[in-house]
Amino acid sequence: MAAPHDPAPLEDLLIALARAAGEAALPFFRGDFAQEDKNAGGRFDPVTEADRAAEAAVRKLLAEHRPQDGIVGEEYGAEREDADLVWVVDPIDGTRAFISGLPLWTTLIALRREGRPWLGLIAQPYLGEMFVGGPSGSRLITAAGERPLRVRPCPLLTDAVISTTDPELFSGAEFGAFAQVRDAARLTRYGCDAYAYAMLAMGRMDLVIESGLKPWDWEPLVPVIEGAGGVVRNWRGQAPDARGQIVAAGDPACLEEALVALRRSAK
Amino acid sequence: MAAPHDPAPLEDLLIALARAAGEAALPFFRGDFAQEDKNAGGRFDPVTEADRAAEAAVRKLLAEHRPQDGIVGEEYGAEREDADLVWVVDPIDGTRAFISGLPLWTTLIALRREGRPWLGLIAQPYLGEMFVGGPSGSRLITAAGERPLRVRPCPLLTDAVISTTDPELFSGAEFGAFAQVRDAARLTRYGCDAYAYAMLAMGRMDLVIESGLKPWDWEPLVPVIEGAGGVVRNWRGQAPDARGQIVAAGDPACLEEALVALRRSAK
Repeated sequence: MAAPHDPAPLEDLLIALARAAGEAALPFFRGDFAQEDKNAGGRFDPVTEADRAAEAAVRKLLAEHRPQDGIVGEEYGAEREDADLVWVVDPIDGTRAFISGLPLWTTLIALRREGRPWLGLIAQPYLGEMFVGGPSGSRLITAAGERPLRVRPCPLLTDAVISTTDPELFSGAEFGAFAQVRDAARLTRYGCDAYAYAMLAMGRMDLVIESGLKPWDWEPLVPVIEGAGGVVRNWRGQAPDARGQIVAAGDPACLEEALVALRRSAK
Repeated sequence: MAAPHDPAPLEDLLIALARAAGEAALPFFRGDFAQEDKNAGGRFDPVTEADRAAEAAVRKLLAEHRPQDGIVGEEYGAEREDADLVWVVDPIDGTRAFISGLPLWTTLIALRREGRPWLGLIAQPYLGEMFVGGPSGSRLITAAGERPLRVRPCPLLTDAVISTTDPELFSGAEFGAFAQVRDAARLTRYGCDAYAYAMLAMGRMDLVIESGLKPWDWEPLVPVIEGAGGVVRNWRGQAPDARGQIVAAGDPACLEEALVALRRSAK
């Protein structure tokens, strides 16, 4: 059995890590920065100086404060992934938004414990917003103070505000499943990356559906959404996993209705 | 011939109008507000208390300062539209984003003179950003100060960052034309509403393509983009018009390449 941990100082560190990442990334936002394509010849998959500077800032702080913990980061890979506690870092989720000048990119950080995301954070440095979640609940931290996050009831898909980042990211069969949910829903928003999950935790959206997510894309979201009373599942309705098909909902009834369509395209 | 006008005091009023609209709308953002569907039975077309409060605030200020001018507003209709100067107001462009808690909705205001948009503004009150344009150029105004706006060169569509709000808003033939441009471009962003045009004026995006726009959706954009060195056209490559098919570009060469596809679906 793992040693007991007090979440409070680790949550403080989580916030400090996000602040360091934001301070590293923000000077590049809407400025000049080097960028390259991680998928040359295929679909444009950008990475920038800002992604790397932000992850390096997080790793530097972790090396100082928690050298015994593991780290999994999008840009610099995994170290000590079998440690009791593992920090999972996406320094800039939504690099395409970042490149386009849009303030909806986020820094995502989870603290994984016993193989599951235990604490999590979604931060938008330009807006000065941090959505932080853990066993004691979720909250939004801004310069103006803190307030609790709570999902809203939405039992019927027909009343739901739903979101996905890019309808082109779905495979053919996945797109059909998504389109069925979209056609039933009240309103669909595109292009939000992980910021959509923050809006779900805040009770402004009801359902977020994505596929192809990596662990650093979805692990940080889970504590924020669960701490706000919501659920995160794979397209089979099970705990999310490496297959990367993710559906998050504020209301379990709305989730069940969406799963009727999504299960048919579940990996 | 119309009487000469000094743009400076009118630009000051334009900014004051946007500030009043923002102050009226912002308390509703992410709060509780009444909303209704303007298109009951069809595609969800929301209008909220916030849209109406923001337009009412603009109309109140105009009645005090410029009672002789005309007004065209999305929520409260047209008055004195044959006046020498006509204010064209979309109090909240992106009501769907507003409802979803996303800070990319904007207040759009143009001052139309001799039938053409002469001054224009795109404001995002939550971000505290105002993109203002006119004959003397375009600038971004924030709490930190002002800076000039300038489009960037991007002669090749293959290097372009492009945007449209919702691919579902296109008709079948329009979608085919858009898809051809999208497949050639480097990167596509969805869900930005008029904020995408601000990013174009800032040199972060290269091409924005939309259809079904009303005069209050596009007239305010024209002075901002033209003042930053860009172009706004209809899908035939002519001055934009009531048909509402709009394409904006930072680089005329990139526009020409896009028009090869768009012309085929031009109304």
